[in-house]
Amino acid sequence: MSIENPREFMLQLFHTAVESVSAENCLPSFLADLKSEGRTIVIGAGKAAAAMAATVERHWQGELSGLVVTPYGHGATCEKIEVVEAAHPVPDGAGQQAAQRILDLVQGQQLTEKDVVLCLISGGGSALLSLPAAGITLEQKRAVNKALLKSGAAIHEMNCVRKHLSRIKGGRLALACAPARVVSFLISDVPGDDPSVIASGPTLPDSSTSAEALAILKKYNIAIDAEVLQYLESAESETPKPHDPRFAEHEHHVICNAATALEAAAAASRAQGMPAYILSDSIEGEARDVAQVLAAIARQVADREQPFSTPCVLLSGGETTVTVRGSGRGGRNAEFLLSAAIALNGHKKIFALACDTDGIDGSETNAGALYTPDSLARAEALGLKPKEFLNNNDAFRFFEALGDLVVTQPTRTNVNDFRVLLIL
Amino acid sequence: MSIENPREFMLQLFHTAVESVSAENCLPSFLADLKSEGRTIVIGAGKAAAAMAATVERHWQGELSGLVVTPYGHGATCEKIEVVEAAHPVPDGAGQQAAQRILDLVQGQQLTEKDVVLCLISGGGSALLSLPAAGITLEQKRAVNKALLKSGAAIHEMNCVRKHLSRIKGGRLALACAPARVVSFLISDVPGDDPSVIASGPTLPDSSTSAEALAILKKYNIAIDAEVLQYLESAESETPKPHDPRFAEHEHHVICNAATALEAAAAASRAQGMPAYILSDSIEGEARDVAQVLAAIARQVADREQPFSTPCVLLSGGETTVTVRGSGRGGRNAEFLLSAAIALNGHKKIFALACDTDGIDGSETNAGALYTPDSLARAEALGLKPKEFLNNNDAFRFFEALGDLVVTQPTRTNVNDFRVLLIL
Repeated sequence: MSIENPREFMLQLFHTAVESVSAENCLPSFLADLKSEGRTIVIGAGKAAAAMAATVERHWQGELSGLVVTPYGHGATCEKIEVVEAAHPVPDGAGQQAAQRILDLVQGQQLTEKDVVLCLISGGGSALLSLPAAGITLEQKRAVNKALLKSGAAIHEMNCVRKHLSRIKGGRLALACAPARVVSFLISDVPGDDPSVIASGPTLPDSSTSAEALAILKKYNIAIDAEVLQYLESAESETPKPHDPRFAEHEHHVICNAATALEAAAAASRAQGMPAYILSDSIEGEARDVAQVLAAIARQVADREQPFSTPCVLLSGGETTVTVRGSGRGGRNAEFLLSAAIALNGHKKIFALACDTDGIDGSETNAGALYTPDSLARAEALGLKPKEFLNNNDAFRFFEALGDLVVTQPTRTNVNDFRVLLIL
Repeated sequence: MSIENPREFMLQLFHTAVESVSAENCLPSFLADLKSEGRTIVIGAGKAAAAMAATVERHWQGELSGLVVTPYGHGATCEKIEVVEAAHPVPDGAGQQAAQRILDLVQGQQLTEKDVVLCLISGGGSALLSLPAAGITLEQKRAVNKALLKSGAAIHEMNCVRKHLSRIKGGRLALACAPARVVSFLISDVPGDDPSVIASGPTLPDSSTSAEALAILKKYNIAIDAEVLQYLESAESETPKPHDPRFAEHEHHVICNAATALEAAAAASRAQGMPAYILSDSIEGEARDVAQVLAAIARQVADREQPFSTPCVLLSGGETTVTVRGSGRGGRNAEFLLSAAIALNGHKKIFALACDTDGIDGSETNAGALYTPDSLARAEALGLKPKEFLNNNDAFRFFEALGDLVVTQPTRTNVNDFRVLLIL
């Protein structure tokens, strides 16, 4: 096939991918099978929370009430469910108040076994539902968090500690809903889709233990106040474990994930006669190095017709990371794309797009960016040096200057990274 | 197909790959078409130099003499061509003497247009042929080199400066052979196979300039002695440029490269009924991040049968890098494999091998290592923590403890990295 406009083609794949993981597209079929014999309370948190709540309102038969919290700018109009906006990724007072109100809501209504709590969980929910465990102050929790971030602890280690210092995470929110049945719907932004990891699993049992949390704090020499130590040594701090009978009636459904988005984009590509291959839905690693690998594979396709024939599209998802060394602006997708641009070095057959499906690449105003074979030549004409921008973690400004940012506004969903390599 | 012994299968692919890029396998067909009406002088440098010289001796019709230099332990028995061993990657006096003797050899024999100089070039040749330009001392050249290494200059920038401070690199060795015809045979260890980059291109014209070398020294604020400045500002320092008429009669042939090795391994795999795909012959990037990407692709194959059906083999080559932060032992292939092991986390269907085709992974005694689904369990049984070994850049010791090193001794060839992912 021939592609008239590669930029538009790649953008179309991205928009198709995002649309495929919208609440409106994924949630209704799950709601159709569900009934409540009593009240139906909707709670939730994350970038998709408001969109999911609006979808529930449109498709749920029967009365509804509730409260969800979503990052600023991610709201949607709801009539029965209150939508609160709060700060992400660094929690603020609005989020903490909303978290407290959600707890009060499920604990203060004398819920019964006939009632159903619909919990709408998506990426970003962890920061939005930040509430310290009883007996620990917000300052103490923050101090531990800050020390952990500096310590070099792995993300699963940090999450283990966080879950054991929280009043909500690690299944505690589900316990608060007892004796009502909790049905959780999750949009996964986590490579591997472990539901207990998405938004720190507020309604899922947790296999990590308080003893492990203490061992991690010890391992990284993190000083903690006596109250924190006392809490973590108490039985109270233990999270509910898998197979806990209190979770026997609960359900959870991952309604969509990176694979959903990639499959939709692949189908849209194939429908236009363009073969599409999904390399992986869960690529992790430093963005600039991931870019070098994917660029090398694209060059192999372009130059040697292996492992795929041209033309074709290579799709991938996951969550790359950026180790910030410079002082520039840029998210991981723009940084990926700038490194790919340098590695592709104007190869005439290869085009690329890298965007965050939530519409926000890092903390910038764009979803990501586009690369075309003439990008480096256009940059040179403007006096821009790609390697200097990359060294300064300044990929946003590089693609901004080229007019190659992809801007969508918040998409109200989140299945993490989405990358296209188009090889003509 | 079923693989009885995945370890042996992967090792067999590696040995097939190495064998396919041996001098004895690749050089004779090129020699068959070549004649000398006068004398035939053999010179050369690199990890394959002695093996290539021995092959020339076996297959060349007519008289021969010459001198090649190869790293310690890479020698081979030759009768007509002298083989000198010297230090690599840090040059020593033996290498400098050999470099001087090679220059004397081609300059002192009053070569004519009827004579042919066969130049045998392979990876490692740059360090082995280290000789400062006239008027510059060895100490001055070393000081510039040291400052460059610390400066953060890119490899092509360092090579530009090195070529302009050398009496041999950047085509100067070919000029020294005038008026004889120079025929170069190259084994490429360079992603992309640019012959002027392999061993810093002693017999190939150079597109970089003295002015660029000076600009690079200025860019990185590298202080240089007056003699060095004077030399770089003189016409004498300029390397011969592409299309220089003095190179019109010369020839060069890349006799094998990473693609040769990967194709041979793929063919050997397919011959046993196991589909094989070459992802790329030129992957660069930080070894641990490259591993995360390739592991993610292997998991996608294993778990989702995309983009390839199981069983299959994924092959790749190139040159990864390791940013050393720890104090351990290990080359880039072992580091790649340890990171892959962590990412694969015991996945039951996936096996892997990563080796350097030269038989030396970094500065260690092994070519690389093997990973099997039970590697992490065996490590745990021994009390080894994979992440701690990775953080300490200590992958050699990790795989040594498991008995999973691949040891071959120097292979006397070098087409850089060779990786297998076997997905059953």
